[in-house]
Formats: sequence, structure tokens, C-alpha cells
Amino acid sequence: MTQRSRPGEARRRVLHAALELFARHGVGGTSLQMIANEMGVTKAAVYHQFHTKDDIVRALITPALDRLTQLTDLAERKRTRTARAEAVLSGIVDLVVANRDLTGLLQSDPAILDMLRGTPEMQAIERRVFHLLAGPDPEPEMLVAAVMASGALMAAATGQRLDGFDDESLRRHLMANARRLLRLRNPREA
Amino acid sequence: MTQRSRPGEARRRVLHAALELFARHGVGGTSLQMIANEMGVTKAAVYHQFHTKDDIVRALITPALDRLTQLTDLAERKRTRTARAEAVLSGIVDLVVANRDLTGLLQSDPAILDMLRGTPEMQAIERRVFHLLAGPDPEPEMLVAAVMASGALMAAATGQRLDGFDDESLRRHLMANARRLLRLRNPREA
Repeated sequence: MTQRSRPGEARRRVLHAALELFARHGVGGTSLQMIANEMGVTKAAVYHQFHTKDDIVRALITPALDRLTQLTDLAERKRTRTARAEAVLSGIVDLVVANRDLTGLLQSDPAILDMLRGTPEMQAIERRVFHLLAGPDPEPEMLVAAVMASGALMAAATGQRLDGFDDESLRRHLMANARRLLRLRNPREA
Repeated sequence: MTQRSRPGEARRRVLHAALELFARHGVGGTSLQMIANEMGVTKAAVYHQFHTKDDIVRALITPALDRLTQLTDLAERKRTRTARAEAVLSGIVDLVVANRDLTGLLQSDPAILDMLRGTPEMQAIERRVFHLLAGPDPEPEMLVAAVMASGALMAAATGQRLDGFDDESLRRHLMANARRLLRLRNPREA
């Protein structure tokens, strides 16, 4: 199969180059021209795939958001508070571990967070995840714990100090620690 | 006392305006001209205080870094692992709660984090704080917990959902939750 015969390939290459540059310079510090240079193509070639930088950011984030929506739906169908918290926590841990570079991007730029948080869909999802983690009518300490948990998972997925962990170990340790923070029972420890 | 007679006042006003704009637009999205506009003065007046944006960022961060160094020194003099972890944790919680807007700034811009992490001083401090929190030769799970704790404290200090907490309550809940994460004993709970 030649490159020309795969229409999604050029798009994927732009997204790949953009993610690298965003990580290095932030979204604000990256231009379509820089993306073109990184790929060794003209700016017109990039423009052929995406008309604005926001379109690129959206294309990078959308699959993870879809997955987050899906796992939140599933978690809400569980019967108990514990099962709901476990389900959403486990889904989010999978998501951040599988997307370490994207997680870093989300954390790194106020423009992206603003764009994300500005949408009613995202605000609704954030609220739902928060309720699943903290439970209904949480005490103040649990409310703070739920906010801490989100920051904790983001930090751990992007922390250079944890680069050496393979996905499976990182996943296991994130779950164990997050359960402790959210006062969910951990399987019996050795 | 008139404004002219306080030489530090103009400097403080620049820092205050810069912090507001950085929070809104990121450091990359803020110019000296924008800071001047925000203050209703000329760009030359800003330049009279700070020649570059980096100088402003450094002036904003330096007092917190000095305090972090100081509390790390103090924590390292404690006798036991628990006392050392308690001391550094408590100091950092005080620091992030007292500087909620600055904490947000540190989190919000890759340029600032790069500038910070690029200095050997900051790298040394990060390493020392990490060792105090995780203890010597930590198991992998505790290592992940120490990275999570830093992200958790940053997120909680800047999370809009926690704007309603006064400093003292936020401080107490952060400590209780962080102790749980780091497996430090909490005072008997009600």
C-alpha cells in the first residue's frame, strides 16, 4: 500500500507532529508553519488537512473524550457507590496511562484547558466524573480528595520520574494509591 | 505616604498585573505591552521595572522557591522518616494554599515549568522533596504515590471547585488526604 492510497495517513502525520511540538513549545508557541517544517512539507499541505490549530487540538482530544464519555456512562449504571467509583477510576486510569503524551498536553497549556472546559459537554462530563468519584453529598474532605485524585492521576501519567514504569505496573500503582485517597477498599495487600 | 515615596510599589503593581494576565492568557500569550495596558501605563514604565517577561516570572516565583528551600532544609533535620515527611508535606500545603494563584500559574504554562526545572537548584530541591515524601529506597507504589501527591496538591490548590474553601479548611483536608495517600498516620478521625 502506498502512502497516497491511505487518506487518513497525512492527517495522522500532522497530528503526530503537532503533538510533539505542542509538548515542546505549548499550543500557544506552535504555529501551522512550525508543524509544516517539522514534517518537511509546505504550510499549504498542513492546511489541506486542518484549517486552524484549534481543529488540530480538537482532533487530538476527541477520541479520548469519546472514551471518557463512554466509560462514565458505563460507571453510572453500576449499583453501588463503590462499584461506580471503582469503574470510573479504573477507566480513567486506563485512559491516562494509554495516552501519557496527550495527558501531558492537556496539562501543559491554559488555552487547551480553556477550550475544553468551555464546552457544555465537557463541563457535564467533569461533573459526572466528580460525582462518581466523590459519591453523592460528599463531606468536604472527600470533595477535596476527588479534586486531588484528578490532579494526582494527571501528574503521575506525565511525571518524568515515572517514565521507567511499564503501563501495567503504573496502572496497578495508580489504582492502589487512588483507592487509598478516595477511601475505596484495596484488595488485601501482601 | 504617597505612591512615589514607595519604590517597591510600582514593582509590586507590575507583578500583580502580570499574574492576572498570565492566569488568563498563559505566559506565552502575554506581552509587556499587555501588562502596561492592564496597568494603564506605558510600556516604558513596565520596562523600567523589568526588562523581560522572564524577569517578571522569576520575581513572581522566587519568594515561593526560597520558602520551599527553607522548609526542605528544616524537614531534613527531623529524626524519623515520618517526621521528615510530615514536615515537608505540611510546609508545602501551607505554601500552595497561601499562593493559590501562583500555583495555578506554575501549572498552567510549559514555559514556566521548563524555566523552573531547567535550573540545577530547582532540580536539587525537587529531588530532596521527593525523598522526604517517599522515604529512602521507596517501593514502586510509594514512588508513584509521591509523584501523585505533588499533582494532587497542585490540582487542589488551583481547582475552581475548591474556591469556596477558606485557607484553613482547605489546608486541613489537603493534609488529611495527602497523609492517606502517603501512608502517614492521620490523627484519630471522628
